[in-house]
Amino acid sequence: MRLTRRYSFSASHRLHSDALSEAENDATYGKCNNPYGHGHNYVLEVTVRGAVDALTGRVADLPSLDNFVTQEIVSRYDHRNLNEQVPELAGLVPTTEVVSAVIHARLDAGWPKDWPALDRVRIWETRNNIFEVTKDRS
Amino acid sequence: MRLTRRYSFSASHRLHSDALSEAENDATYGKCNNPYGHGHNYVLEVTVRGAVDALTGRVADLPSLDNFVTQEIVSRYDHRNLNEQVPELAGLVPTTEVVSAVIHARLDAGWPKDWPALDRVRIWETRNNIFEVTKDRS
Amino acid sequence: MRLTRRYSFSASHRLHSDALSEAENDATYGKCNNPYGHGHNYVLEVTVRGAVDALTGRVADLPSLDNFVTQEIVSRYDHRNLNEQVPELAGLVPTTEVVSAVIHARLDAGWPKDWPALDRVRIWETRNNIFEVTKDRS
Amino acid sequence: MRLTRRYSFSASHRLHSDALSEAENDATYGKCNNPYGHGHNYVLEVTVRGAVDALTGRVADLPSLDNFVTQEIVSRYDHRNLNEQVPELAGLVPTTEVVSAVIHARLDAGWPKDWPALDRVRIWETRNNIFEVTKDRS
Amino acid sequence: MRLTRRYSFSASHRLHSDALSEAENDATYGKCNNPYGHGHNYVLEVTVRGAVDALTGRVADLPSLDNFVTQEIVSRYDHRNLNEQVPELAGLVPTTEVVSAVIHARLDAGWPKDWPALDRVRIWETRNNIFEVTKDRS
Amino acid sequence: MRLTRRYSFSASHRLHSDALSEAENDATYGKCNNPYGHGHNYVLEVTVRGAVDALTGRVADLPSLDNFVTQEIVSRYDHRNLNEQVPELAGLVPTTEVVSAVIHARLDAGWPKDWPALDRVRIWETRNNIFEVTKDRS
Repeated sequence: MRLTRRYSFSASHRLHSDALSEAENDATYGKCNNPYGHGHNYVLEVTVRGAVDALTGRVADLPSLDNFVTQEIVSRYDHRNLNEQVPELAGLVPTTEVVSAVIHARLDAGWPKDWPALDRVRIWETRNNIFEVTKDRS
Repeated sequence: MRLTRRYSFSASHRLHSDALSEAENDATYGKCNNPYGHGHNYVLEVTVRGAVDALTGRVADLPSLDNFVTQEIVSRYDHRNLNEQVPELAGLVPTTEVVSAVIHARLDAGWPKDWPALDRVRIWETRNNIFEVTKDRS
Repeated sequence: MRLTRRYSFSASHRLHSDALSEAENDATYGKCNNPYGHGHNYVLEVTVRGAVDALTGRVADLPSLDNFVTQEIVSRYDHRNLNEQVPELAGLVPTTEVVSAVIHARLDAGWPKDWPALDRVRIWETRNNIFEVTKDRS
Repeated sequence: MRLTRRYSFSASHRLHSDALSEAENDATYGKCNNPYGHGHNYVLEVTVRGAVDALTGRVADLPSLDNFVTQEIVSRYDHRNLNEQVPELAGLVPTTEVVSAVIHARLDAGWPKDWPALDRVRIWETRNNIFEVTKDRS
Repeated sequence: MRLTRRYSFSASHRLHSDALSEAENDATYGKCNNPYGHGHNYVLEVTVRGAVDALTGRVADLPSLDNFVTQEIVSRYDHRNLNEQVPELAGLVPTTEVVSAVIHARLDAGWPKDWPALDRVRIWETRNNIFEVTKDRS
Repeated sequence: MRLTRRYSFSASHRLHSDALSEAENDATYGKCNNPYGHGHNYVLEVTVRGAVDALTGRVADLPSLDNFVTQEIVSRYDHRNLNEQVPELAGLVPTTEVVSAVIHARLDAGWPKDWPALDRVRIWETRNNIFEVTKDRS
C-alpha cells in the first residue's frame, strides 16, 4: 500500500554553475541562467509505503507526516531563493533534479525508524516538467 | 502495456474505531471522527496490465471492464455512506487505505481468469491524498 | 479589478425536503435522497472587486480575507454534516444552490464596510457541477 | 462571442514598497517581502470579444494574437525578475494586481484598431489566487 | 444564481472554406486545414440562470437538463466528424466559434419556456482555447 | 532519478480492422468505428531515467530531448489523421494502445546511445483513458 501526500511551495532560483564558462552556462541553461533569477510554484509529492495498521486502518499518521515535511522542507523552501537561502543547496546548481535529490536525502536522513518506508519524492516544477527520486531498495 | 481507466463516486464516511477509546479516536482521526460524518468525491483508477491483442489492437475490452467496475464498485459506493451501506466495509474503519484494499480485493476476487492482469487500484480521496494498492506479483 | 481566492472543505449532506412526499423526494433528488447521506469535496471561490491601492499595490488584504472566510465558513463547514451541524442551514434542503446562497448571505452580512465589494461566491460541488451567486448591484 | 487564449510564464518577484517602513512592509507582504525574492508559474488569459467573421468562421486571427501577446508580454516576462527586468514595472510593487493592470494597459495601448475588443486579462498567480482586469466599457 | 454543468464529446473536424482559395485556406487555418482532419476532446459547459425554488432548493431539474443537452448535442456530436455528420453544421466551417454559436442556437431554440434562462454556452477546444457565447439580454 | 516531459498533439482516428467483419468491428469498437472518424487532444509523457550529472545538475539536456520528441512524434502526429497520414501506423488499427507502442518503438529506435535510458511512454487519450508502455529491462 502506498500513500501520497501533496505539498506546495513557491520559490525562485537561477541555474548557473561556477564550474562552467559563461558560454557553457548559456548553452546549458538558456534563459534559466538569467542572473536575476526566475521562479516556480513547485508541487512536492511524498509517498510512503507500508502495511495498513489493523487497529486504525491507516498506513501512516498524517499529522505527523505533515509536520515532518512542513518543518523540514515546506517552511524552509517556501517563498525563498533556492540559491541563497537554503543551506543544503549552497554551492549546488538548484536544478529541480538537484532539489529533488536533496529533498529526498533530507527526508530520508531524518525519517523516523518506526515509520513506514519513504518510497518516492516527486516534484512538479511546472505542469509539464516532473522529477522523481525513488529510494533504492537494494 | 498498462491501461488505466478512471471512475468516480461521491460518498460519506466517519472514521471511528470501536476498539479505541473516545480520546484515542479523537487523537487518531481528528475532525474525521465527527459523529455526523463528512464526505468526498473519490476518483478510482483501475489499471490492467497485458499484451496488445494483435487482431483488435486493444489490451482490454473497455465496455466489459467498465461494466464490471461499475457493477462491483461504482454503483454500490456512489452516493452511499461507507460505514453503513457497503457490506464488505461493515465493521471496518472506512479510511481510504481500507477502502482501497477492500476494493482491490473485491475486484481481484471477481476478476475473470481470461482478462489481462489487475495491476493496481488507486484512489484519490482529495486532490492531495492519494492511495494505491499494487497486486503482489510474487 | 477582481481578486478570487479559492478555499475547500469536505462535508456530507442528504437532499430531502419534509415538504415533499417520499415519492416526490425520490423523483426530485434521486440517489442524493439516500437517508444515510453522501459527501463531496467542495471548492469555494470568493471574489472581491475594487481598486488597486496605490501604496501597497493590493486590492485586498489577503490574510484578513482568509481569516474572515475561514472563520465564517471553512472552519464551520469542513468535515461536517450540512444537514445537522451548520446552524444557518437548519431546516433547509442543503442543495449546493442553497449552500451557495447561504454562504453568500453570511459573508455579505459580516463583510467589513471598508473592504472592497464582495463580487461573487462560486462553489464547485464536483468537477462538473458549479454554482454561482453574484451580488445584485442594483 | 468571447475567445480566451491561455499563455504562461515563470518569473520571480519581491513584494516591497519603498514608501513603507520595514515593519509595514513585513505586515503588508509577509513572507512575500523576503529580500531574495520568490517565484511563480503564472498563467495569463487574454479574452477578446467580437462577432464571428462570416467568411472564416473566426472571431480573431489566432496566430496574430499569439504573436502580439508573446512579443509584448510572454517573451519579456518569462524567466525574468519582475522587480528588475521589466521596464513598465520599474518603481512599482509587482503584486499580481499591479502586474495584471500593467499587462492589461500594455496590451490595450498596442491593440490594433481593427481587432475585436480586448475584453479581459486574467492571471493565475497560483491555483488559488486569481486576478482579473475587465476593460471599462463605459 | 447560475448553475453550470459540464459535458464532453470527442470529435474530428477540418477547417476549410470553399469561399477561400487554397492559399487563403492555408493562410487562415494553417495545419487545421489538413484535408484528412484532426480532432479534439471538447468540453461543453451549459450555464442556466434563475432563482432557487423555495420548495426543492434547486435552480433547475438536473436530470431534465442532462437529458436535453445529451439528446440535442452530446449524442449527436460525440465521436462524429463535425464537417460531415452534424446537419446543422453542413456548409459551415466548423471552427469552435461556429460550433459554439450553433450549439447555443440549437439549445436556445428548443429550450423549454418554463425553464430558468439559458445564460451561456462555453466550449473548451483545448486546455488553452476557450470559446463563450452569452445570450444577449437586451 | 526520473524526468518526465509532457507534450501534446491533436489528431483524428477511426478504429476499424479489415480482419474483422462489419458486425465484429461494431461490437469491438462501437462508436469509435464511425467511418468519418473522431478525434482527441492527446497528451504524451516521455520519461527518462538516469543519474544527475555532477557538473550541470541535469539528468538530460531538455532542448535536445524536446527537439527529438518534437521531430519524431509531435510534428508528425499533430493535426493529422492517424489512419492515413502517419506511415508507421499504416495498416494498423490506431487504438491508443497501438499508438503508444508504435511511439515507444520509434523513440527507442532513434534514441541516442549516450542519453539516459528511455523509461516509459504514457499517453492520455482523454482525462479518463491512460496508456503506458514501460521498456522491458530484462
